[in-house]
Amino acid sequence: MAANNAILPHRHLAGASAANRLPATISSYKDFTIGKNQNQKPSNKAIKLAESLSNKLNLHIQTTIQRKLNRSNLNNTTIEEKHNTPAKSPKENISQKWREIHGSRDWEDILDPLHPWLRREIVKYGEFAQATYDAFDFDRFSEYCGSCRYNRSKLFNKLGLNKSGYRVSKYIYAMSHIDLPEWLEKSSFVDTWSKDSNWIGFVAVSDDEESERIGRRDVVVAWRGTVAPSEWYDNMQRKLEPIGNGDSKVEHGFLSIYTSKCSTTRYNTLSASEQVMTEVKKLVDFYQKRGEHVSLTITGHSLGGVLGLLNAYEAAKNFPGLPISVLSFASPRVGNIAFRDELYQMGVKTLRVTLKQDVVPRMPGIVFNESIQRFDDFTGSLEWVYTHVGVELKLDVRSSPYLKKGLNLVGFHMLETYLHLVDGFHSSNSGFRVDARRDLALVNKDCDMLVDELRIPHNWYQLANKGLVLNDHGRWVKPKRDPEDIPSPRNEAQSNLLENETNYGLESLFV
Amino acid sequence: MAANNAILPHRHLAGASAANRLPATISSYKDFTIGKNQNQKPSNKAIKLAESLSNKLNLHIQTTIQRKLNRSNLNNTTIEEKHNTPAKSPKENISQKWREIHGSRDWEDILDPLHPWLRREIVKYGEFAQATYDAFDFDRFSEYCGSCRYNRSKLFNKLGLNKSGYRVSKYIYAMSHIDLPEWLEKSSFVDTWSKDSNWIGFVAVSDDEESERIGRRDVVVAWRGTVAPSEWYDNMQRKLEPIGNGDSKVEHGFLSIYTSKCSTTRYNTLSASEQVMTEVKKLVDFYQKRGEHVSLTITGHSLGGVLGLLNAYEAAKNFPGLPISVLSFASPRVGNIAFRDELYQMGVKTLRVTLKQDVVPRMPGIVFNESIQRFDDFTGSLEWVYTHVGVELKLDVRSSPYLKKGLNLVGFHMLETYLHLVDGFHSSNSGFRVDARRDLALVNKDCDMLVDELRIPHNWYQLANKGLVLNDHGRWVKPKRDPEDIPSPRNEAQSNLLENETNYGLESLFV
Repeated sequence: MAANNAILPHRHLAGASAANRLPATISSYKDFTIGKNQNQKPSNKAIKLAESLSNKLNLHIQTTIQRKLNRSNLNNTTIEEKHNTPAKSPKENISQKWREIHGSRDWEDILDPLHPWLRREIVKYGEFAQATYDAFDFDRFSEYCGSCRYNRSKLFNKLGLNKSGYRVSKYIYAMSHIDLPEWLEKSSFVDTWSKDSNWIGFVAVSDDEESERIGRRDVVVAWRGTVAPSEWYDNMQRKLEPIGNGDSKVEHGFLSIYTSKCSTTRYNTLSASEQVMTEVKKLVDFYQKRGEHVSLTITGHSLGGVLGLLNAYEAAKNFPGLPISVLSFASPRVGNIAFRDELYQMGVKTLRVTLKQDVVPRMPGIVFNESIQRFDDFTGSLEWVYTHVGVELKLDVRSSPYLKKGLNLVGFHMLETYLHLVDGFHSSNSGFRVDARRDLALVNKDCDMLVDELRIPHNWYQLANKGLVLNDHGRWVKPKRDPEDIPSPRNEAQSNLLENETNYGLESLFV
Repeated sequence: MAANNAILPHRHLAGASAANRLPATISSYKDFTIGKNQNQKPSNKAIKLAESLSNKLNLHIQTTIQRKLNRSNLNNTTIEEKHNTPAKSPKENISQKWREIHGSRDWEDILDPLHPWLRREIVKYGEFAQATYDAFDFDRFSEYCGSCRYNRSKLFNKLGLNKSGYRVSKYIYAMSHIDLPEWLEKSSFVDTWSKDSNWIGFVAVSDDEESERIGRRDVVVAWRGTVAPSEWYDNMQRKLEPIGNGDSKVEHGFLSIYTSKCSTTRYNTLSASEQVMTEVKKLVDFYQKRGEHVSLTITGHSLGGVLGLLNAYEAAKNFPGLPISVLSFASPRVGNIAFRDELYQMGVKTLRVTLKQDVVPRMPGIVFNESIQRFDDFTGSLEWVYTHVGVELKLDVRSSPYLKKGLNLVGFHMLETYLHLVDGFHSSNSGFRVDARRDLALVNKDCDMLVDELRIPHNWYQLANKGLVLNDHGRWVKPKRDPEDIPSPRNEAQSNLLENETNYGLESLFV
C-alpha cells in the first residue's frame, strides 16, 4: 500500500522507503514533541520545551517540574478537568516511519526517551492484548466459562475499541487440558460450551484508513495470558522441548498450549498454532496479492507474550521476508539461547515491556540453557534471551504519582498497570509525562493500584450483579447468552473476514 | 382500624378482639396448612398431609421424604422450574390473628412448628431490615458514603419491595463518630454529604390495603446493622450505662449510637432516638385519632436488632398500651437483667431469630449482670436476656440442602442466610420445607453460602463497574448522583408522609 505523503505533516522524518537508514540522532522527533503541543496551555508548552532541551543536554531538568505538576494533578479540580478531555490524543500519520516503529532497527534511539509515536503504538497493541482479558468469561458457574463473551464482530465495539481501526478476523482457541493445570479456566460443570478449550486470542487486521495511517496492512495476533502470576509459576514443569530443526528448545508446558489438539473436541481439532497460522497466511496472501505492504504484529501479556514468541517463531519459518514483530508485556522467559538466536537470525523483532517490580518477567526457572548445569546462578547475568538486542522497555512503578508503591504482586503484573506506565513514560531518567492522557481509572480495573486520592474503586471492572437479572417471577437468574455470542465451531468456520479459503499448505513445525 | 371480617376465610382462628385469649391448641392452623395447598401437585399435597399428621403425632415422618425432595431440588431441571414460578406465595388475610402473630402470647404454639402466617411476616420484616443494607452506599470513595442510595419515596421500588404494602415515611440518621470505631462507614474524604452521620434506618407505615390484610395500621422501624461480625466485637467497650430511671443498664457503645447528637451536624442535631420517636409518635397519633388499631413493629439485624431493642424500650415508655414487638435477627446481647425485666414488664414482645452457627448472638461479652462478678461463667446458663419469654427462633444451617456447611463466619451472620432458613423452617425437628419459595439466589448476595450446584455466583450483589460509567471523552467516571437522591436535611424535613408537624412532647429518656 502506498502511503499518501501529501497528508504527512512531518516530512523531515525518515520516510517509509528509508527504513533502516534513519539518521542516528533523534532530534527530529523531539522537535515533533514540541510541535504537537501547539494547542496546549503555555505552561505545558514551556515545560515541554524545557523537557526537550533538557533531554538534549541530558540535564533532565523537567523531572522536578513534572513531579510538582504531578502532585498538583492529584487535586480534584485537575482530575475533574481531565475527565472532561478526551482519554486519547489525536492520532498522527506514521506511515513514513512504520518500519522503525515496528522494530526494523531494534527500536534503537526511539525507546529511551520513548518516541511518542512508538508510545501510542505500544498502547494500541497493549489494548488489543487487554481485550482478551476484558471480554473473557471467567465465571466458573457459567456454561460458557472460558469463552469470549461476545462474538468476533462485536468484540471491539463492546470494549470501546471500535475506533482502533482494526477488525477481528478470527478467534483462536487452545486446549485447556494441558500440562499446566492452573493456566486455563475451566467451568465447574459438564454441560458447557466446550469441555476442552479456552478462547486464547484473536487475529485482527487494520482497515483501509488505519492502514493508510500506519503505512501498511497490519495483521495483529493478540494472545490471552493469565491474570494471577503466582499460580502457574509452581506448576511449570521446567522441561525443555525441541522446537524446529535446530538446537532451539522451549518450555514444554508453553509449547503444549500452543500445539495441543484433539480430533474429538469442538474447538481444537486444530491446535492454536494451526488456527492462527492458517488465518495469518490467508490474510497475508490476500493483501500481498493486492500489492500492499503487510506486517505481522504479535502481542500478548504474561503467558500471552510467551505464546506470541512461539507464534512469531513459526510465522518467521513460514513467511520469510514478512516483517514480524512481537510486543510482549510482563512475559516470563520461554526458551534457550538457541531459540533466542534463531528468532534473531530470522529477523523477528521483539520489544519486551517489563516492570521493575513485577516478578513474572524475572522468573528464573524459565530461563533455560542446557550448556549450564545450574541456571539459578545465571539469572543475574543472563537476564533475558533477548537482552542483547536491546529491546527491553523497563518501566518503574515509582515513576507514576498515581500508583500505590506498596508491594502488590497482582497489581504489578496487571497489563493495565503496564499501559498506564507506558503512557506516562518519557525516559528512564525522567518523571511521569505531564501530558499523559490515558484514563487513569483503567488501572484499577482488576486490582488496587491507584492512590486513594483519585477515588477510583479497586477491581471495578464487573458486571451488574455478576450477570444475574431479575426475571418476571421475582427470581434472580443468569440470562441465556445472546445466541449470536454463543461459541459455535460452525459459526466460527463460516464467519471469515475474507473469502472462505481452506488449504494454505503451511509448513507444520509442530507435529 | 376495624377489620373487615367479611373477607376473612379463616373465621375459626382467634379474632383480633380475642388477643391473649387464643385457644391453647394450634390444630386450627394445621388444618389451614393443608388447606392452603389446594393448588399444589398431588405429591406435595400428600406430603403436606403426612407432614401435618406427623406433627400431630410427633412422628416427624416427613423429614425423610422432604430430604429426598430437597436432594432432587438440586438437579437443574427443578431449579429451572423454580425460576419460572413466583418467588413468593400469595398473601393471606391475617387480620383475625394479628395480635398473636405480633407476639401478644409470646408466640406460644406458633413458633415450632412455625405457623406459615408468622413465617411470612418474619420474612416481610426481615426484608425491611435487609433493605437497609441493600440501599446503603458502602463505597468509601463516594462522597455519599454512609447514605442511602435512593430517596425515601424510591427506596422500596428500587429494591423490589414495591408490593410490600408499606410506604417509607422517614429516614433515620445516627452519628458515625461514636465510641464504636468500626461500626459505621466513613468516607475517606472530607467533602462528603455528611461528616458526621450514617443512614441507620427508616420508619414505614402500612398502606390501607396491607392494613386491611394485617388487621391494623402497622408502623415499622427498620434499623441497619453491620455486615462483618468480627470487627466490632473487639471494639466493644463492655461498659454498662444506666437507661431509664430504674436499674436497667445497657452497653455504652450501643446506647451512644442511639442517642448521640450534635448541634453542628447536618443530620444529627437530633439523635436517632429523637428522630425515630418523633416520627413514630406522629404516625401513631395520626392513625389512632382516626380510630384505627395501631401497632409498632421494630426490626433489625445484628446491631440493628440492638438498636431495635433500645427503640422499643423508649417507645414502651412513651406509648403505654401500644402493641410493640421487636423482630431481631442475629443480634448480640445488649443489656442487663433489669433491662430485660423492664422490657418484659412494659409488654414489649421480642422474637429473636438466631442461627446456631452464627457467633454474634452468642457473644458472651455483651451479657452483663452486675450481680455476677465473672459473666463468662454465666454464658452457658444465662443465655439471652429474653430467653425466659420463650421467643427465640433458632435456625440451623444444616437444615438447608442448599447451603454449604463449612465454617463461614460472614455467611452464617448474613441476614439473607437467616431469611432463607426462616423460609425453609418448618419445625426444629424437620427438614427444609419442600414448598419454600423464596429465591435461593438472594442468599449469595454478599457471601458464598450456596452449594456450587446452584450455579449462583457468590457476592453477586454489585453495581456494574462499581458505579463507574464511560463519559463522552472515553473516561470512566463516577456519575453525579441523581439530585433527588442526594441527602439533604431540608428535603428530609419537608418530605413528611403526613402533615408537617413538629412538637410531640416526647419524654426524653436519654439526656
